[in-house]
Amino acid sequence: MPTAKAYASVSPTAALAGITIPRRETTKTDVRIEILFCGVCHSDLHQARDEWHSVIPTVYPCVPGHEIVGRVTQVGQGVTKFQVGDLVGVGCLVGADHSCPNCQGGFEQFCPSATFTYNSPDPHGTAPVTYGGYSDSIVVEEAMVLRIPAHLNPAGVAPLLCAGVTTYTPLKRNHVGPGKKVGIVGLGGLGHMGVKLAHAMGAHVVVITTSPSKAEDARRLGADEVIISKNTDEMKQHAGSFDMILDCVSADHDINAYLNLVRVGGNLTLVGAPEKPLPVSAFSLFFGNKTLSGSLIGGIAITQEMLDFCGQHNITADVEVIPIQKINEAYERMLKNDVKYRFSIDMASLRD
Amino acid sequence: MPTAKAYASVSPTAALAGITIPRRETTKTDVRIEILFCGVCHSDLHQARDEWHSVIPTVYPCVPGHEIVGRVTQVGQGVTKFQVGDLVGVGCLVGADHSCPNCQGGFEQFCPSATFTYNSPDPHGTAPVTYGGYSDSIVVEEAMVLRIPAHLNPAGVAPLLCAGVTTYTPLKRNHVGPGKKVGIVGLGGLGHMGVKLAHAMGAHVVVITTSPSKAEDARRLGADEVIISKNTDEMKQHAGSFDMILDCVSADHDINAYLNLVRVGGNLTLVGAPEKPLPVSAFSLFFGNKTLSGSLIGGIAITQEMLDFCGQHNITADVEVIPIQKINEAYERMLKNDVKYRFSIDMASLRD
Repeated sequence: MPTAKAYASVSPTAALAGITIPRRETTKTDVRIEILFCGVCHSDLHQARDEWHSVIPTVYPCVPGHEIVGRVTQVGQGVTKFQVGDLVGVGCLVGADHSCPNCQGGFEQFCPSATFTYNSPDPHGTAPVTYGGYSDSIVVEEAMVLRIPAHLNPAGVAPLLCAGVTTYTPLKRNHVGPGKKVGIVGLGGLGHMGVKLAHAMGAHVVVITTSPSKAEDARRLGADEVIISKNTDEMKQHAGSFDMILDCVSADHDINAYLNLVRVGGNLTLVGAPEKPLPVSAFSLFFGNKTLSGSLIGGIAITQEMLDFCGQHNITADVEVIPIQKINEAYERMLKNDVKYRFSIDMASLRD
Repeated sequence: MPTAKAYASVSPTAALAGITIPRRETTKTDVRIEILFCGVCHSDLHQARDEWHSVIPTVYPCVPGHEIVGRVTQVGQGVTKFQVGDLVGVGCLVGADHSCPNCQGGFEQFCPSATFTYNSPDPHGTAPVTYGGYSDSIVVEEAMVLRIPAHLNPAGVAPLLCAGVTTYTPLKRNHVGPGKKVGIVGLGGLGHMGVKLAHAMGAHVVVITTSPSKAEDARRLGADEVIISKNTDEMKQHAGSFDMILDCVSADHDINAYLNLVRVGGNLTLVGAPEKPLPVSAFSLFFGNKTLSGSLIGGIAITQEMLDFCGQHNITADVEVIPIQKINEAYERMLKNDVKYRFSIDMASLRD
């Protein structure tokens, strides 16, 4: 069986290090991809360290990475959408049954047979679980592979495959566009994509942050206004005025204070994942018939739509490119929010 | 100034008792109504006892009642929609500015100048606050008065003005109808209306209750199925299958267990008002892109639509008719859920 170079964690406390992993032969419907860049998502760290043990226990070795940009090096004889040399992407999903109601509705992420890009039982039996994008190559069924606009910087495109679609999907679902006032809470990997995308959709974008120091950068990214959430007067002035708020905060926070900013009939969508349940006052939802939603990544069709949108609007993530050898350091810096706004691994470093 | 007989509380701990209150002259746009029946809503008790002090402190004397059915006895010269003798209703709202975006959107309940039927500053200056339907008559501006289908039992119609529209509105907002599976949590004043309305809309209706003893009555009211929420197996069988759940429970309860029943993209709407914030797990919302909403009564247009719908489908609330003299006893029984499913006061008892 073919092999690939990769970086993996072998225990919850081990640093990630080089490893050789199996990659299956390119079957009839498969695309083999040489990985150029892989974004570093907070989920990678959680999974590598088995911090989601109760929900999705980690099987070791664990090769994280689900923000993959690469070039097609081989295609199965039944592949029709891609050819050798194409620039392509792979996000959080590498398999689904394509026939269940969720798949038919464009929600492959909720398919009962969904295969996630790493740490998901491998239906091909190549290994106990799937291995992700911290690797020099990957083999993925054609249906789960995305086209990448060729004129975009591939290092900055990588994070679109998770952070991009995670923020694009709820913005689209809430019909964000001209005339809409949209709040982005939290300016990190997800939030900075939310600002760029909502701005490109034509909305009036307001960044809501605890840190006055982020105001300038928020405006550079496309924010029309910045609210410092600790400023009670500012929060009062904006009460009941937002069509939608995209909440990108993973830390504990007072969701009712943000619901208070939402207009009658408006929505607040959570894309950050606080560990503990959020205390939600029923009255925060009653007064204004408001809705609180969750949104998990996106299916294949909307991921492609998002990539095409980013191509049209020249949108990529702001990335700091690192060699794979710096991944452990990058994890520590990510925990301190010391990155603007996403690490992207240059996978050439793994081939050297 | 004209006066009316009424029942009022004069302190948080006082029993309700007879009182004489002022009612304004019938102005150009007003309708004077002889009250026939008034439903007893849980809010009446909360307000009479000043239990919402921090949100809406009670001004005494307090005349509750916002589920009013009566007959027009006088109309102002500018009134065009009603004439003497018409059977009409008044719900939770007796005034609004009719010009703000919320009014224009049909959400008079969120108008900044909304006047609620009782304990709301009285813009006419007749009294410090408005006095509700525990009274022999009321004067209301034409725009806030509803037409009542004449063939329905007026005692059972009264609760439609609050419990009816409270449950009808979120069912309509979520496009409940044939092919949809709808859960009703909690079978009380609100819940029993939810069952009747969702059934009449053509949905597959499932009552979710802690009490096996309610199963039979749930089916009589129109439920196709009953789930006992303490039965873990039953709850598992129905996981991810509901298009919408209407949560009518005011007591503390585990909202995540009910969110788990909602299908991908589905909704859970709260209409009961638990005092304490509900702990909502972000993961309950993520896995399935679910939404949690609140819904507060309804505007005038949808209240009329609901009444017309009830007329077409012969729907009224199940009521126990009481004389006004039994109101204090009714409050105590309501606290013990000892009513199927709503008290309706026969206001002839006040005139005797």
